[in-house]
Amino acid sequence: MTDLAAIETLLHREIPLSREMGVRVVLASADAARIAAPLTPNINYSGTGFGGSLYSAAVLSCWLLVRTTIEANGFEFDTLVIQSGGMEYLKPVTDNFEAEARWPSEDGRVRFLEGLRRRKVFRTEIVALVTSGGETCASLTGRFVARVR
Amino acid sequence: MTDLAAIETLLHREIPLSREMGVRVVLASADAARIAAPLTPNINYSGTGFGGSLYSAAVLSCWLLVRTTIEANGFEFDTLVIQSGGMEYLKPVTDNFEAEARWPSEDGRVRFLEGLRRRKVFRTEIVALVTSGGETCASLTGRFVARVR
Repeated sequence: MTDLAAIETLLHREIPLSREMGVRVVLASADAARIAAPLTPNINYSGTGFGGSLYSAAVLSCWLLVRTTIEANGFEFDTLVIQSGGMEYLKPVTDNFEAEARWPSEDGRVRFLEGLRRRKVFRTEIVALVTSGGETCASLTGRFVARVR
Repeated sequence: MTDLAAIETLLHREIPLSREMGVRVVLASADAARIAAPLTPNINYSGTGFGGSLYSAAVLSCWLLVRTTIEANGFEFDTLVIQSGGMEYLKPVTDNFEAEARWPSEDGRVRFLEGLRRRKVFRTEIVALVTSGGETCASLTGRFVARVR
């Protein structure tokens, strides 16, 4: 998956709410995944980003990172299930925003891929940051279980 | 706010993503608030509820509970901001689902209302459960800051 438009189409098809949120894919590599979303469909009564939208964007960036990493390493992606998510809201989002997921460490990524090789199902923790106007507005720590075919 | 249809219209207007999610208001009192959502617009690639939708539904039920409690106690609601949210996913959601928010304790509700009386801004923790087919599928513990006029 290197064509961002194709990845975006896939994301919209596999998680339809991402289309309603206006999510676009900005970057998808085995190191980091970044999506962008406009404020308007994700706004709340205060004129800022709805907390549920920010969380969803962060989870979508994690999904994209894990999926891209899995495929870049020669596996066939099956599913990614979230086990828990902890979101900290630091500043209100007052404009369009992005969510970027990264591997917490190179060790973590290596362990995850070795686990998948051995068992086809493995757990990992991913951190995603939500930014707007160059500022970090929220951070998600998610625990996920991935499965390959 | 006792007319559920009017509350639903308000929710859809104030947090537009709730309309895309197909959220309906089932119960709104100062003791508990419950919303319902269909699986279809909230589905993911596995055929189960998208983790971001379940979280969003849980947050919406908290918003509804706090708002209803505030208005039932004679305050004029201004804003409710989420500071942090911790979501545990227990079982996949394979059908339409509901999210119900409750005050963790009567003491907690009383302290919250006393705080609002003194300062117009006060913090509270709310717990919401996501259920589907009679089973608890996820739980959210959220910290919120409410403001009244």
